[in-house]
Amino acid sequence: MQTVVFLSDFGITDVYAGIVKGVIKSHCNADIIDLTHNIDAYNLKSAQFILKYSYQYFPKNSIFLVVVDPQVGSQIKPIVVKRDSYTFVGRDNGILTFGDNFDVYEIDQSFDNASHTFHGRDIFAKVVCKIVNNNINLKKTYEYNKFDIKEVIFNGEEEKGEVIWVDKFGNIIMNIKSNLQAYELVIKNIVIKRKAQFFAQYKEGLFLIDGSFGFIEIATYMGSAARFINAQIGDEVIIRRQQ
Amino acid sequence: MQTVVFLSDFGITDVYAGIVKGVIKSHCNADIIDLTHNIDAYNLKSAQFILKYSYQYFPKNSIFLVVVDPQVGSQIKPIVVKRDSYTFVGRDNGILTFGDNFDVYEIDQSFDNASHTFHGRDIFAKVVCKIVNNNINLKKTYEYNKFDIKEVIFNGEEEKGEVIWVDKFGNIIMNIKSNLQAYELVIKNIVIKRKAQFFAQYKEGLFLIDGSFGFIEIATYMGSAARFINAQIGDEVIIRRQQ
Amino acid sequence: MQTVVFLSDFGITDVYAGIVKGVIKSHCNADIIDLTHNIDAYNLKSAQFILKYSYQYFPKNSIFLVVVDPQVGSQIKPIVVKRDSYTFVGRDNGILTFGDNFDVYEIDQSFDNASHTFHGRDIFAKVVCKIVNNNINLKKTYEYNKFDIKEVIFNGEEEKGEVIWVDKFGNIIMNIKSNLQAYELVIKNIVIKRKAQFFAQYKEGLFLIDGSFGFIEIATYMGSAARFINAQIGDEVIIRRQQ
Repeated sequence: MQTVVFLSDFGITDVYAGIVKGVIKSHCNADIIDLTHNIDAYNLKSAQFILKYSYQYFPKNSIFLVVVDPQVGSQIKPIVVKRDSYTFVGRDNGILTFGDNFDVYEIDQSFDNASHTFHGRDIFAKVVCKIVNNNINLKKTYEYNKFDIKEVIFNGEEEKGEVIWVDKFGNIIMNIKSNLQAYELVIKNIVIKRKAQFFAQYKEGLFLIDGSFGFIEIATYMGSAARFINAQIGDEVIIRRQQ
Repeated sequence: MQTVVFLSDFGITDVYAGIVKGVIKSHCNADIIDLTHNIDAYNLKSAQFILKYSYQYFPKNSIFLVVVDPQVGSQIKPIVVKRDSYTFVGRDNGILTFGDNFDVYEIDQSFDNASHTFHGRDIFAKVVCKIVNNNINLKKTYEYNKFDIKEVIFNGEEEKGEVIWVDKFGNIIMNIKSNLQAYELVIKNIVIKRKAQFFAQYKEGLFLIDGSFGFIEIATYMGSAARFINAQIGDEVIIRRQQ
Repeated sequence: MQTVVFLSDFGITDVYAGIVKGVIKSHCNADIIDLTHNIDAYNLKSAQFILKYSYQYFPKNSIFLVVVDPQVGSQIKPIVVKRDSYTFVGRDNGILTFGDNFDVYEIDQSFDNASHTFHGRDIFAKVVCKIVNNNINLKKTYEYNKFDIKEVIFNGEEEKGEVIWVDKFGNIIMNIKSNLQAYELVIKNIVIKRKAQFFAQYKEGLFLIDGSFGFIEIATYMGSAARFINAQIGDEVIIRRQQ
């Protein structure tokens, strides 16, 4: 059965995600997996980061339905993006067009009875099923919106990065990787030098760790580094040689 | 495979929804979709609203399992309701019997080992599977509890409505529709006249919009109207001619 | 299809649970049910309690994937536990080895490219699929970590118990059962004597009730007993003869 992976900012207190699943199940045969519905409302940047570093863990040929969509109802068009063996469906707002190797398609069809407020239900879910049912006209386009989250690779020069995600455990994920070990991080005037290989290595205090997204994280054992530092998405971070 | 749609106030911090799914999977072959488990605890009115404006998006012949059930363990009986091609299973507390065109059935069977505190697990999940397995005696009844959420249609006369739901984005959903455009809303002494077709139309301030449930909503672009006004479920709203 | 039941402390604001599902779906054919992902972060005791009193509601032969894992990346090994017809996969941290009748297996294989921070994705999900695909070497072991949540059975002597879980509704679940009816509970200097058979029996005030996990709970009708008493996991409770 076709795997559909569903990413949105709908949250789970509402029924929006449930209704979208209902529309998909009504129109095609699909196995729907939730990636998460708890992207910060309207946060295109977080959505792109999450998607970019998650999609490769899903079965080849999966279709990703991405609904983080403050422009719903406006002239900004729905698109389909193909990358590796994967297909992505969503708004042309830049979330889907990260990196270099992908093709972008317009959908050569109108959705006459669509509401102006819920295209997840009225357009995107149906596009997913049209793809599953091989019943869609896609027209390749070279005009689309694009942004890429800045990713810092520390090679020895001091650089600025930022907090890109804070997870439930309070781990602080930054847009920074390193090729070297002799670095330290500065966040909110706190300097962190200590590096752990695994969380339980140091029983107290903050440390740096290579996180599961492939970026450096700030963590503390069985506690919330984010609460300790009061860190939030968007906070500035400096990476520099150990002093 | 039979689609079962599951609506409850169980939340997702507990295992109640998970256990109910386990019982269903143990007793029949079903594809279970969560509508939401985050109905306010015991809020029959919200549950009915959500159900009434969601069910038609699910595949024909779906079975809806509805567990919002403060009377669990009391004498109030489980019922099965049939409406269009859909089947609904839950307590006889009025959630399921909205509108006019439906039939109500009692379940001609006792569930001897049922607990007094968790009928989702001990009765309703098994009723769902008995329906799936076509192994149940249903007896039509004309005695059941009923309520209907008041729905206001503005035709030019001033009317009172109320806030029926506030979604994650802070959109304020009211039990009001309009046949006319020349209306304004008053909530907490704030008068709102401006109408948007889509959320991104006005970049700041409050506006009215035809929401995806088919009712008028109060919204603001990329922000929470509910937080701005401090609106909550149950707040009174007045709709009247523009002044 | 093989049922996999997934229990973790990943929460649902992150994508960790979603990614683990992606890895499972990439490696084997499985129907994944969420038990809950909202175990308190790192709380092995709560995880064991939830698992112990839930697993029997799932289909025979289900595989339970349990990721509550503060020791991720350390030397503490992954294990497979078999109990009744069920299989459990997780860290050797004691969650899985409750009670008496089970066998414990080491996994005779290394996972070379595993991260040090996300074994749910890099090891446990793959172990689940190796079991599903019948492609794993398991070696029985008698060396493993074990703990058991204390369970108090009141037979007439005063005993101490504790709050083991507080659910969304504010019901206070304790590690106490009773063979007798002539008991009372003391929590935070409040004495509770009244016993209800079902929640709606008393329309106000606190009461005791036999909860759905098989333990005594403190509840109040359509309200939160936990908020009323300010009760939390770990609070001490005394059960004694009615005075």
